[in-house]
Amino acid sequence: MADAEIVAAGSELLTPDKVDTNSLFLTDQLNALGVAVVRKSIVGDERELLASTVRNALSRARIIVLTGGLGPTEDDVTRDAVAIALDRPLVFRQDLLDEIENKFRKFGRKMTENNRRQAYLVEGAEVLENPRGTAVGQWIDYMDRMILLLPGPPRELNPMFTGLCVPRFAARLPAQVLRTRFYRVTGMGESELDAVIAPVYTRYQNPATTILAGGGDLQIHLRARCTSAEEAEALLAEVGDPILDLLGNRVYSTNGDSLELVIGKRLREERALLAVAESCTGGLVAARITSVPGASDYFVGGFLTYADAMKTAQLGVPEKLIAEHTAVSEPVAKAMAEGARERTGATWAVSVTGEAGPESSSGAPVGTLWIGIAGPAGVDAQQVKFPGDRERVRTWGAQAVLNLLRLRLS
Amino acid sequence: MADAEIVAAGSELLTPDKVDTNSLFLTDQLNALGVAVVRKSIVGDERELLASTVRNALSRARIIVLTGGLGPTEDDVTRDAVAIALDRPLVFRQDLLDEIENKFRKFGRKMTENNRRQAYLVEGAEVLENPRGTAVGQWIDYMDRMILLLPGPPRELNPMFTGLCVPRFAARLPAQVLRTRFYRVTGMGESELDAVIAPVYTRYQNPATTILAGGGDLQIHLRARCTSAEEAEALLAEVGDPILDLLGNRVYSTNGDSLELVIGKRLREERALLAVAESCTGGLVAARITSVPGASDYFVGGFLTYADAMKTAQLGVPEKLIAEHTAVSEPVAKAMAEGARERTGATWAVSVTGEAGPESSSGAPVGTLWIGIAGPAGVDAQQVKFPGDRERVRTWGAQAVLNLLRLRLS
Repeated sequence: MADAEIVAAGSELLTPDKVDTNSLFLTDQLNALGVAVVRKSIVGDERELLASTVRNALSRARIIVLTGGLGPTEDDVTRDAVAIALDRPLVFRQDLLDEIENKFRKFGRKMTENNRRQAYLVEGAEVLENPRGTAVGQWIDYMDRMILLLPGPPRELNPMFTGLCVPRFAARLPAQVLRTRFYRVTGMGESELDAVIAPVYTRYQNPATTILAGGGDLQIHLRARCTSAEEAEALLAEVGDPILDLLGNRVYSTNGDSLELVIGKRLREERALLAVAESCTGGLVAARITSVPGASDYFVGGFLTYADAMKTAQLGVPEKLIAEHTAVSEPVAKAMAEGARERTGATWAVSVTGEAGPESSSGAPVGTLWIGIAGPAGVDAQQVKFPGDRERVRTWGAQAVLNLLRLRLS
Repeated sequence: MADAEIVAAGSELLTPDKVDTNSLFLTDQLNALGVAVVRKSIVGDERELLASTVRNALSRARIIVLTGGLGPTEDDVTRDAVAIALDRPLVFRQDLLDEIENKFRKFGRKMTENNRRQAYLVEGAEVLENPRGTAVGQWIDYMDRMILLLPGPPRELNPMFTGLCVPRFAARLPAQVLRTRFYRVTGMGESELDAVIAPVYTRYQNPATTILAGGGDLQIHLRARCTSAEEAEALLAEVGDPILDLLGNRVYSTNGDSLELVIGKRLREERALLAVAESCTGGLVAARITSVPGASDYFVGGFLTYADAMKTAQLGVPEKLIAEHTAVSEPVAKAMAEGARERTGATWAVSVTGEAGPESSSGAPVGTLWIGIAGPAGVDAQQVKFPGDRERVRTWGAQAVLNLLRLRLS
């Protein structure tokens, strides 16, 4: 198995508040290629120290992946450091500069002179195109070694790695078959999930099982590595199928689709329209719905009724109802959903009202939310409760709204 | 200024799900001692690679802090690796073994044989007592270098560092003071910011300047290290004040406050109320506004008018206006802001309508947004353009809306 080292450049990664998270994504990707990560280094914006780190890595590992330090500023020294470590010159490429200038021009901005730095390649490097930024990546074959210079922002790095680097690795590394399954799950906590499925997956080293959790969203990755695809698929079925049975409809996707995308596809299939009425989540539900390209096919919009007076004025929730039951209550959640559905003409409307904290204005305990859903067959509501701070309650709350909608649509 | 390297040992830190967080605590502690962390390394449980990492670090840094790998098992190789790197033998200490045996006895457990490993010290090392675990730490003075071997669990490491290591450092390092400034900036790109301020900050090694960028938000950190607080503050003023002058009102905070918090404070001071009308950002503006605890004091809510029909029905934007100018236009942005202000009675209303991509429905190029703002003195609008994909356009768009609001409020 080939070894890799990951080197992150950037003084901000040596402060007391920041960790390098790109290496987690890269480790996952490299492992999937059958490559082991044996060391990670984090170096500030110091040319010589970075060069020494690369040289030291080269003496042992076959693959060196560098992230960050490709920007236009003085403290972006990755190009220089790799050139020093390999004892190769940097070569100016007019075509790269032209392209950078084009990107600036397209958006009506003038390119500053320091962007010239981004037009230099280590001699012999292949360009890795970066449609999402001005810094191109670089791929260097150096004897039997591979050295990659990748941009730091994850939204630039991740597609560059999967799109442009993975195929290059595949052409250079021994064939191994890797097959994966990827389940996305919601409506339960991480430890609860583990308690349910550990009796199955802990009996196997291969496939390897990883559970990731964040914001109420859970991911289960199964990765089988074998000499044939059949063998790998058989192993995945042996472990994956019982897990699916145990989790039932808490699994919302087996192909990587996000919750908002699953909902979007369902709405489009049904030619249904959706509206929202958000209070405590303040736009988080709609922001997720509209993060999907083409959401305008099924999302009409909605109401941010943060103040109680807005619930009455914009959604027609009777003042008396709020006075009697408080804003965080089943009747108000239902009235919000009904009001949103009626006033927009949408097929479905979801509502959410709750106490995100740090203080409660309705009297309901912080972390209590009522979620309403109105559709062709009527309206109902559900209470959820989450521990934690404002950010956590809002994030988990938005997730719960989307999950209730998904379950109702299916 | 003394330099330090931090080396974390443990194969579990090279998996796709785990980051080394001990180094954040250590960085904070070392910085407070006037020590800069210049490199962090994470190495698996491999004796030779760990030894090589320590040797490489020794060639430059004065302080090497190793964490983890001091346990009783085969894969705990930190003691061995440091002995190899320093070319010193490991010395068995009967008194340490007796103490470990005592700890086991106290908890009614029998010591397993592999615990003997924990009774070895690198020759010349001082013992750092560990009341919370069986693995003692080690402090090694090696010429003018200091090498620390510390246990991995934070509850053992943290008190050992603050209680036993900090006083030893204080006796060996010159007294130093660290002072910082922190500016938050928006309304310009990273390379533009650097072009403006590089002529100032690049003339100084001290204070050290770091620029961070993400989602249209920029941060400038200045860190001065001197023998007195007066000297440090003078240096910060010498570099920081000209930077503030150059950036003018693009600096929105000098105390770390986020953009949404700055806006919230201003609105609360003015006893003003805010409403929003979002189209392409789909709730992102409101989600940021309401992320601030107590936002209900000034935020009434708003409208997510994603479909054009919603702009007309909920905000009173004339159909004819949309037909004539398209939904992504100055008149529509203004009408949205006016409609939101009138229908909510808020003091201020901001609106945003644009093309987030991947396709354009209005004919305006993807990345084009119109932002409207209505207030006591009337309404106006501003166009912005951003490159990149849907996510980037929406994130930068929300940032631009908040920034326009901030500028209008001040």
